[in-house]
Amino acid sequence: MPVHLQAPDPTALQPVAGVELGIAMAGVRKAGRRDLCVMTLAEGSTVAGVFTRNRFCAAPVQVCREHLAAAPGVRALVVNTGNANAGTGADGLARARATCSALASRLGLAPEQVLPFSTGVIMETLPVDRIEAGLPAAIADLAADHWGAAAEAIMTTDTVAKAASRTIEIDGRAVHVTGIAKGAGMIRPNMATMLGFVATDAAIAPALLQPLLAEAADRSFNRITVDGDTSTNDSFMLAATHRAGHAPITSLDSAAGRRLKDALIEVAQQLAQAIVRDGEGATKFITVQVDGGANEHECRQVAYAIAHSPLVKTAFFASDPNLGRILAAVGYAGIDDLDQGLIDLYLDDVHVAERGGRRPSYREEDGQRVMKQSEITVRVDLHRGAASTTVWTCDFSYDYVKINADYRS
Amino acid sequence: MPVHLQAPDPTALQPVAGVELGIAMAGVRKAGRRDLCVMTLAEGSTVAGVFTRNRFCAAPVQVCREHLAAAPGVRALVVNTGNANAGTGADGLARARATCSALASRLGLAPEQVLPFSTGVIMETLPVDRIEAGLPAAIADLAADHWGAAAEAIMTTDTVAKAASRTIEIDGRAVHVTGIAKGAGMIRPNMATMLGFVATDAAIAPALLQPLLAEAADRSFNRITVDGDTSTNDSFMLAATHRAGHAPITSLDSAAGRRLKDALIEVAQQLAQAIVRDGEGATKFITVQVDGGANEHECRQVAYAIAHSPLVKTAFFASDPNLGRILAAVGYAGIDDLDQGLIDLYLDDVHVAERGGRRPSYREEDGQRVMKQSEITVRVDLHRGAASTTVWTCDFSYDYVKINADYRS
Repeated sequence: MPVHLQAPDPTALQPVAGVELGIAMAGVRKAGRRDLCVMTLAEGSTVAGVFTRNRFCAAPVQVCREHLAAAPGVRALVVNTGNANAGTGADGLARARATCSALASRLGLAPEQVLPFSTGVIMETLPVDRIEAGLPAAIADLAADHWGAAAEAIMTTDTVAKAASRTIEIDGRAVHVTGIAKGAGMIRPNMATMLGFVATDAAIAPALLQPLLAEAADRSFNRITVDGDTSTNDSFMLAATHRAGHAPITSLDSAAGRRLKDALIEVAQQLAQAIVRDGEGATKFITVQVDGGANEHECRQVAYAIAHSPLVKTAFFASDPNLGRILAAVGYAGIDDLDQGLIDLYLDDVHVAERGGRRPSYREEDGQRVMKQSEITVRVDLHRGAASTTVWTCDFSYDYVKINADYRS
Repeated sequence: MPVHLQAPDPTALQPVAGVELGIAMAGVRKAGRRDLCVMTLAEGSTVAGVFTRNRFCAAPVQVCREHLAAAPGVRALVVNTGNANAGTGADGLARARATCSALASRLGLAPEQVLPFSTGVIMETLPVDRIEAGLPAAIADLAADHWGAAAEAIMTTDTVAKAASRTIEIDGRAVHVTGIAKGAGMIRPNMATMLGFVATDAAIAPALLQPLLAEAADRSFNRITVDGDTSTNDSFMLAATHRAGHAPITSLDSAAGRRLKDALIEVAQQLAQAIVRDGEGATKFITVQVDGGANEHECRQVAYAIAHSPLVKTAFFASDPNLGRILAAVGYAGIDDLDQGLIDLYLDDVHVAERGGRRPSYREEDGQRVMKQSEITVRVDLHRGAASTTVWTCDFSYDYVKINADYRS
């Protein structure tokens, strides 16, 4: 049961001028499932990407990096579910390239103008023949208003499709930012978005696209964690078609640049939080806020130690204010000179621990009240400095085990 | 259901000359439970300890460190279950000291000659009055052959008591090494033994005791992990009573020194592995061996990434040879210049992945056969150098969630 997450209203997903999406059933792993998605970009579009930091990155991630580095001019993306094409060695690389070539030849492009994405089971051979056979149907399906269908087609263990859209105005022109994403396990910091695709028709200097994307990722997908596993395939892409008709943005600090950045961050945060809300087995959405750090790095260490602790996550599942588990996680987060005697802990508005110990006025029923909610904010104040950070995660339930024990069955 | 673990045969636990153990029911958390254990050491004994590296260490750990640093001459240990006296601030420290004083006055010792240990729920006030009231019964129960009862008294979520014993011969004299330990969750590298107490009647130069203990810990308790959580209270203690009557050991590299070290490592490994075999919800015992590292540090990084991955652990629980999850964990272990194209992966005798990809001759039914076993060795060869390491862990089941969600109920 996802936590406060509803399927997107397809009519609320604004088309992005110059972007079309087409879906097909290729039978990659199972027949009768929409498992293939093609996205085309109008000529002149620019694309930026951030990818998993897993050294065992999948073949499509390697091919994406090559193609993005080769030359500008990406014009199509192809996404399959059911098979991650990871841990597949040289053969996997060849199959990712073959997928690009097949789509390129049908669209009249060079293979380097196509980016491939795969998600699903690791270490099995990608059935390129089935993907190739599915391409004509996906191409025939291409339409500007298929964002909702595309969000559904890229789902794996997701229970709800994830899409978000914002419209802003620049120079009196409507500018759209629309994106889709899929989770829902193997999610962890350091660029662990699973797959996320956002497009905008904003006109923006090509050199600004990568820093814009990096900042959005840092404020969204890089702050979520479900189980601490960093996937081999995580990719977050931003395409700009420059079709909105306003004067090109040449600085992210200009009024127009800030407006676009804010809209992109909103879309990315909504998608990232949707991944956590639909985390495998999630019953609660937890915001972990760490204040008073000497620097942001140590705030993140503490936030992730809390967000990854199976003991903390099972306590949230049980609505058990066993808050010492949170203090224990703070203690092993890796801050060598941490003074436990300074630490404050809050659960929403309830001040639980003070100077490293249980607060005398803290009453268990107050902790219990907050723990029973489906949305909870844990706040730790380290009292070491002025830095802070926020991370979003979910609890850890029977169903997480069930989903991951049964995934391939 | 613990994995191939039986309760120790009390008659196989050799008494250690100069050591007595007494048990009582103090009602620390629940009435009618053996939750208090006192261990006394004959005059002239020496004691060494290694403790949690959690910066949020519990009050008893802080007091242990103070008392060990204050002076030689520790003569008694007192252990309670039901309450960890952690996250309890200055009041917790005062209560740990009060426990020592109470036992010291009854035994005619100085408070600094007593070491306190607590395990159980975090962030609740230690009921010192109940512990004090239980001390007379524990003292009256003191006997040299109560190792088995002591192993039972220190259990919390353990399902089986953990004890081990070895007898060696030095200078024609029988020398005993006997120990007990408790787990079973919140177990992680970097000195995360929960509680472990080993005693020997060997005569050994006092300066050798700490290095001997450190090496044994590094070969045993520091190589196990259940859930990646480092407890606030972990302590592993070694006491030597020097009563065996042989010429004192003055070098760990002498024949007698090596014999004692080997026996201690055997006892410590048996205890450490017993903790994993009885890991919360464990159904399988997994040995993770990493070979071919450039150094031991990176081997450990890889071994723990595998051993901590919830996705890997749930796949073991499901007997699902979803081995790509292991390769993914290798990839995010943190080796920046890892070449995934060199990696081999084995499940027992089955060669699964070669040069980073699925081995052409690998058949799923072979992986399935190994995965169905209750004892499995995962071996990764990084092909980067000559270093290697081994870590022991367990799988991740529904019952882990159940136990930790219900722990305080």
